[in-house]
Amino acid sequence: MEILDKLIWPKGFSSDGLHANLRHNPDKPDLGWIVSDVAADAAGVFTLNQFPAAPVVLTQATVKKSQKLQAVIVNSANANSFTGQQGYENALSEQEIVAKKLGIEPDLVAVSSTGIIGEQLPMAKMMTGIAQLQKSQSTQIAQAIMTTDTKEKVAALQFGKATMTGMAKGSGMIHPNMGTMLSFICTDASIDGQLLQRLLRELTEITFNQITIDGDTSTNDMLLVLANGQSQEAEILAGSPEYDEFKEALYLLMKDLAIKIAEDGEGASKLVTANVSGSGDNLQARMIAKKIVGSNLVKAAAFGEDPNWGRVIDAIGNAGVDLQAGQIALAINQVLVIDQGEIVAENLPALEAAVKSKKIVFDVSAGRGLGKGQAWGSDLTYDYVKINAMYRT
Amino acid sequence: MEILDKLIWPKGFSSDGLHANLRHNPDKPDLGWIVSDVAADAAGVFTLNQFPAAPVVLTQATVKKSQKLQAVIVNSANANSFTGQQGYENALSEQEIVAKKLGIEPDLVAVSSTGIIGEQLPMAKMMTGIAQLQKSQSTQIAQAIMTTDTKEKVAALQFGKATMTGMAKGSGMIHPNMGTMLSFICTDASIDGQLLQRLLRELTEITFNQITIDGDTSTNDMLLVLANGQSQEAEILAGSPEYDEFKEALYLLMKDLAIKIAEDGEGASKLVTANVSGSGDNLQARMIAKKIVGSNLVKAAAFGEDPNWGRVIDAIGNAGVDLQAGQIALAINQVLVIDQGEIVAENLPALEAAVKSKKIVFDVSAGRGLGKGQAWGSDLTYDYVKINAMYRT
Repeated sequence: MEILDKLIWPKGFSSDGLHANLRHNPDKPDLGWIVSDVAADAAGVFTLNQFPAAPVVLTQATVKKSQKLQAVIVNSANANSFTGQQGYENALSEQEIVAKKLGIEPDLVAVSSTGIIGEQLPMAKMMTGIAQLQKSQSTQIAQAIMTTDTKEKVAALQFGKATMTGMAKGSGMIHPNMGTMLSFICTDASIDGQLLQRLLRELTEITFNQITIDGDTSTNDMLLVLANGQSQEAEILAGSPEYDEFKEALYLLMKDLAIKIAEDGEGASKLVTANVSGSGDNLQARMIAKKIVGSNLVKAAAFGEDPNWGRVIDAIGNAGVDLQAGQIALAINQVLVIDQGEIVAENLPALEAAVKSKKIVFDVSAGRGLGKGQAWGSDLTYDYVKINAMYRT
Repeated sequence: MEILDKLIWPKGFSSDGLHANLRHNPDKPDLGWIVSDVAADAAGVFTLNQFPAAPVVLTQATVKKSQKLQAVIVNSANANSFTGQQGYENALSEQEIVAKKLGIEPDLVAVSSTGIIGEQLPMAKMMTGIAQLQKSQSTQIAQAIMTTDTKEKVAALQFGKATMTGMAKGSGMIHPNMGTMLSFICTDASIDGQLLQRLLRELTEITFNQITIDGDTSTNDMLLVLANGQSQEAEILAGSPEYDEFKEALYLLMKDLAIKIAEDGEGASKLVTANVSGSGDNLQARMIAKKIVGSNLVKAAAFGEDPNWGRVIDAIGNAGVDLQAGQIALAINQVLVIDQGEIVAENLPALEAAVKSKKIVFDVSAGRGLGKGQAWGSDLTYDYVKINAMYRT
């Protein structure tokens, strides 16, 4: 399956994005929706932050009710987060307004927001904007969800007669009080919502949950998958070859979007990848991989193109996983640096050259089992500090 | 009890520090020792990194044997970490050489190193240096343990007829492959080693374990306490008023040294403190406090003097503690920003001014119980990135 870097709407989906005056720049859409012709089986994963934003609370409950969605309404520039009872009521109103416009039940509408924390949604502007939304083939929604992302993050692939497409946003809390990971994936394949929910949870663990830019989980994170069955193929059942194919498609799309977020991390100049094998189990491998790409010291060394393997070893040792130094192997951009716990001194000159690259890949073997895992992040740059210290709230 | 910012050797302790040519700068001592006239009751806490350095492995075993130490030998410029069997044998040799010079058992000698990871200790230089060490009242050891710390971290206080003094080093992994928290505390009070060990563990949780500069635990961290009983007062027994006094003295000294490390964090321009109360228990309070001071986003906002309370709320929500937004109160440098989960909008102008300070203090109430905790860290600055990205290995 080949991933294309664009949105291709599956059968029975439409979308739109427009400028609803939520932010000043009139060239930047800030409101959009995705609409399915029929109620779609749906699944969602949401922030684990203890203070989930109003749209997260509402949409999580909405998806749980029936695992069905027909529309997603999303805005940027205001996160509707830490806004109390008023914020929740605004999210409910938004859901009702969209449902009424589409002539569907409110329980089929997901609500999503990203932007400033602690300010109430400007409901008059929201209503004016929603009134203007069309059921079109527009791809402007990928821009409408962006805050200070530097590029659109979109992907599509085809499998069998079905199409799957998705978008994501997020590059850390790039403007003060802004910062959210949002992703919406649509397919015209047919799959039961409960089965889709289980699959989504499983794949989130090895894709979106394995990226880290700054270690902070936003109050607004949300990932939704809608499957409307309009490709008119048979329903995908657990354990079938079609299920395996669907799972592979969803995995590839989620991984691709997750890596696009990591690559566009705040101030990022490099993509940093950790591939870990040989740990006791997959979870341990993911913990080690995430610890490496999450280490400020490793991230700063990546930025400085410093062949600093000691920091990688230190991070591995801090992953909370039982390990033996003598069993560790480490390669950086294909150059073997540590083998069975011993430094491969003759390779250090090659390492100097290898780290001068836009991509830094750490391959680690823990020498203890069959566990495997990956994680992705960005480097720590002057721009990261500038972005986070020097913009005013 | 008043803390003085200097070393005052308790009765029966001597020390020395000198340049053993382990680093190039001849003005900087790089080898030192602390010697007690008699075997002292001793306790230690050590790095939890899965790859502890050779001196950590050796000294941890040494302390465990009898909870007694009479000497501590320490060098900077070389961490003897990730050095395999040869590294361990070098640490053993060092222990034996010091023991022989002092005419005591090797099991009474603690060995400690900080500096470059992955290089063998230059044993000829070490032996030459050890041969020159004197039993003096020198305070040069506080400089001998520094790597790229910008200042000595020392403290002393007196309680009853006893004295307690200590030193610490560490400001992150400030030079590539360097980075260790070391601290040595000496007292002439008399206390059983097992009791001291339990007390040290308890106090470490609320002092040294609550500072964070970059979230990475070095392979060489070590904190030792020696109590030689030479004040000639009665032994301090658990549950006595003297025990409470001793505990208070040790707590104050450990907290003071820990805060000095946080203040001298890599590239730091500000000390960041979080005081949390009202959580379910003390551990939860410490988790919340440490999450706040460990957040890159909070640290960068502190550097930028940005009154960005949203990032603090986000960090609190990510602490892994069960919380309700409506019960949270937050003050930043004494300015109340959130009260019962609601923004105190009229205080925001005052907040703008309050964050322009060398010290940033977050007071948080979780509104759920009697738990209390503190944590300390530094801000995230351009210099942090420069130090960690731009020095060459």
